[in-house]
Amino acid sequence: MDNNHIAVYPGSFDPITYGHLDIIQRGLGVFDQIIVAVARNSEKKSLFTVKERLDMIRKALGDNPRVKVDTFEGLLVDYVINQGARVILRGLRAVSDFEYEFQIAQMNHTVREQVETLFMMTSVPFGYLSSSIVKEVAHLNGPIDSFVPPPVKRALEEKFGNSR
Amino acid sequence: MDNNHIAVYPGSFDPITYGHLDIIQRGLGVFDQIIVAVARNSEKKSLFTVKERLDMIRKALGDNPRVKVDTFEGLLVDYVINQGARVILRGLRAVSDFEYEFQIAQMNHTVREQVETLFMMTSVPFGYLSSSIVKEVAHLNGPIDSFVPPPVKRALEEKFGNSR
Amino acid sequence: MDNNHIAVYPGSFDPITYGHLDIIQRGLGVFDQIIVAVARNSEKKSLFTVKERLDMIRKALGDNPRVKVDTFEGLLVDYVINQGARVILRGLRAVSDFEYEFQIAQMNHTVREQVETLFMMTSVPFGYLSSSIVKEVAHLNGPIDSFVPPPVKRALEEKFGNSR
Amino acid sequence: MDNNHIAVYPGSFDPITYGHLDIIQRGLGVFDQIIVAVARNSEKKSLFTVKERLDMIRKALGDNPRVKVDTFEGLLVDYVINQGARVILRGLRAVSDFEYEFQIAQMNHTVREQVETLFMMTSVPFGYLSSSIVKEVAHLNGPIDSFVPPPVKRALEEKFGNSR
Amino acid sequence: MDNNHIAVYPGSFDPITYGHLDIIQRGLGVFDQIIVAVARNSEKKSLFTVKERLDMIRKALGDNPRVKVDTFEGLLVDYVINQGARVILRGLRAVSDFEYEFQIAQMNHTVREQVETLFMMTSVPFGYLSSSIVKEVAHLNGPIDSFVPPPVKRALEEKFGNSR
Amino acid sequence: MDNNHIAVYPGSFDPITYGHLDIIQRGLGVFDQIIVAVARNSEKKSLFTVKERLDMIRKALGDNPRVKVDTFEGLLVDYVINQGARVILRGLRAVSDFEYEFQIAQMNHTVREQVETLFMMTSVPFGYLSSSIVKEVAHLNGPIDSFVPPPVKRALEEKFGNSR
Repeated sequence: MDNNHIAVYPGSFDPITYGHLDIIQRGLGVFDQIIVAVARNSEKKSLFTVKERLDMIRKALGDNPRVKVDTFEGLLVDYVINQGARVILRGLRAVSDFEYEFQIAQMNHTVREQVETLFMMTSVPFGYLSSSIVKEVAHLNGPIDSFVPPPVKRALEEKFGNSR
Repeated sequence: MDNNHIAVYPGSFDPITYGHLDIIQRGLGVFDQIIVAVARNSEKKSLFTVKERLDMIRKALGDNPRVKVDTFEGLLVDYVINQGARVILRGLRAVSDFEYEFQIAQMNHTVREQVETLFMMTSVPFGYLSSSIVKEVAHLNGPIDSFVPPPVKRALEEKFGNSR
Repeated sequence: MDNNHIAVYPGSFDPITYGHLDIIQRGLGVFDQIIVAVARNSEKKSLFTVKERLDMIRKALGDNPRVKVDTFEGLLVDYVINQGARVILRGLRAVSDFEYEFQIAQMNHTVREQVETLFMMTSVPFGYLSSSIVKEVAHLNGPIDSFVPPPVKRALEEKFGNSR
Repeated sequence: MDNNHIAVYPGSFDPITYGHLDIIQRGLGVFDQIIVAVARNSEKKSLFTVKERLDMIRKALGDNPRVKVDTFEGLLVDYVINQGARVILRGLRAVSDFEYEFQIAQMNHTVREQVETLFMMTSVPFGYLSSSIVKEVAHLNGPIDSFVPPPVKRALEEKFGNSR
Repeated sequence: MDNNHIAVYPGSFDPITYGHLDIIQRGLGVFDQIIVAVARNSEKKSLFTVKERLDMIRKALGDNPRVKVDTFEGLLVDYVINQGARVILRGLRAVSDFEYEFQIAQMNHTVREQVETLFMMTSVPFGYLSSSIVKEVAHLNGPIDSFVPPPVKRALEEKFGNSR
Repeated sequence: MDNNHIAVYPGSFDPITYGHLDIIQRGLGVFDQIIVAVARNSEKKSLFTVKERLDMIRKALGDNPRVKVDTFEGLLVDYVINQGARVILRGLRAVSDFEYEFQIAQMNHTVREQVETLFMMTSVPFGYLSSSIVKEVAHLNGPIDSFVPPPVKRALEEKFGNSR
């Protein structure tokens, strides 16, 4: 029954924000292990390469034997099964999230019935936060300290050539 | 870490439907134990007494050492902690569910930070199902076989004096 | 195939508004006959009796051989079949309408598969209109000329003892 | 043009919460005067009498020459005009708020065209807060310090006979 | 009055899914004729050419004298009128659909008042289905048998060079 | 306190529609001055250049000493502060607007606490209108007289090479 207590937390993490870190931290209160899984497929339109994203996630998370950082290609549900897990963990912020996530979760459950998606509502202070809005603020040279941890901030500033 | 793997599934279950049973069954694929917890507070406006509701839930679930059927009064989060659990499990069907559940989950997390609410999307065939719609169809003498298990069907027919 | 071209337009019509009349008028451009069907079940909490509501609907619609005004009890889908019709016509105004109507339409389709529900978006000027908001404005002695036809206006003023 | 800078902030305030106080405080950064207007009509189903509610609002707000606390009966738009104001201020928390408020704002604009409704999104920490959820938590003897100011907390405890 | 009983079912159908086929089948229970109309304008970003899409639709539908498969360019409402029809038929799955469809339907009704849009809720098992999610699953080499009919499946596998 | 009565109305205005003009007109009933601010950042994907858009806005608005037409780059909140204003004015049409605007407003309030965003619901006849839907209708050679003022209509016809 052990593998039920592993959750895969998938995403593009382009880049990881305090909102993602909140879900991971709270997820560790429920699951024995969390696998943060960066989707390789969505790389084309991303700001950071998969390698840069993995790097930022690892720096942001620090050393924790209960968290594994990985990438995946192909169907998420197949990756989950290959990892010996049965649970996909996702954060929900808003109604628009809900509908999209609902569609994906139903599709995944149809494709591989044994995989379940569990949702957590994002914590109140991160309810409006998204990677894309962080990138936009960073691009406009706005303050991002309350949205992303220091290594991500530095990486964003380098990308956009900001100096403050 | 064991108590993380107990989930409390609260509700009024007035009466329990195949939609609830689906969440419990799928929840057992993720958690070691599920406590189905009938809220005593909402009894006033209910069709069935708490005792009747517990009875129907037990008949519908059958014997399963990993499921416990119980009632609670007062704050749900306090009940969860008293049960040695940390997780509340809830089903999500629609956007209107989402907003209400979001509000309750945030409130619960504010009141007792250590308790997390995890959501599952209801399975596709039960997405439109609710206890109140079942009661309305039963009240109008419509067919309810595909919505509730036989003991609940019989109890509804008795309440509404239907015979078919 | 003829009976496909009859649509039942059900509701509580407590009272009928210009929004309902707009759906009926536009529905007559699509269907050969429309049966305006007042639900008897919802009478308890209504402002007007079923007889008063039928009366106002008839006055508002005038003589039209293609419109029939009727009442029904029990399951709507059974009434539809008994009328030799296959279509339920409903208006949609807002997201909250959508979710409720979706649930009801799915339930009806499960109970009687041969009955279809078709939806029309309410016309722009009536998008915010509802019987309950009209009653509230009338109750507060506000102007309701642009919401309901004259006979309904008079009936509302009588109910609330307004004189202007 | 002066009267454009007065905003009426209507509600039932049963009781006032930190969410309402946040809107008033931020509204004072935009408008010269804010009239907090308690609706008399909704008294029947309220926990507190209008007098109690006014009292709590006054205690919570303290002395501020730019804030007036008042009650109104009848159409809100007529009250607004009688106060020499043109603006209704409302807080928005969620999608369900949005649809209801949209309907009311359109209706008000139809009834009295010169009155405008302006909306503020509630601040992040109060997004899930409502008077009814506060009453429910207080009723269940849960902690409410982070939801309402001390005089409201005491009044709620008295109503529900709590002592902690 | 005959032309009221023809419905145009427009879309990009890139490719047609069981969700579309369900709407067409159920639409034939209500309308005498259904014209499946592929929009030529949206070709640029499509996976399949208009010709390929027409071909798949025809194979999926088989021979039915009451269904016509066609393409259109320019304003949909003008195409509808040119076909001697008055009704546009659309499926609704989710709240996000609803808002977009609402906007389009209002716009169409403004541009050509005599054309009405009628909506059907997609059947429960297809509520989460969309052409784009099917393409994504096919692209990732996942199973698509329960989403599209065999000729569409084969066409998708050819496009993505899958073999299983 | 004067600068509280200046509102910045930002957007891409590609092109300005009667919906935008309605918000500006009604906004002038509430604020002493309105600054219509065209975002320079979003130029890449726009149909009209910033210069063309400014030109159309000026023609549509005519001479009004209380309205200023301008452009901005970088963070909107910084532009607002530099203009000596404290208020951002935005129109809300639909639930999907609401969620996006909510996110942006919260982000802006986090970045610069002194800036408030106030929302107006778009007037009923413009609830379905957007610049992108106008462009699509114009592109398909459909009638746009009821959506945009004459100079915008002419500019759209020139862009798309329409002649009617």
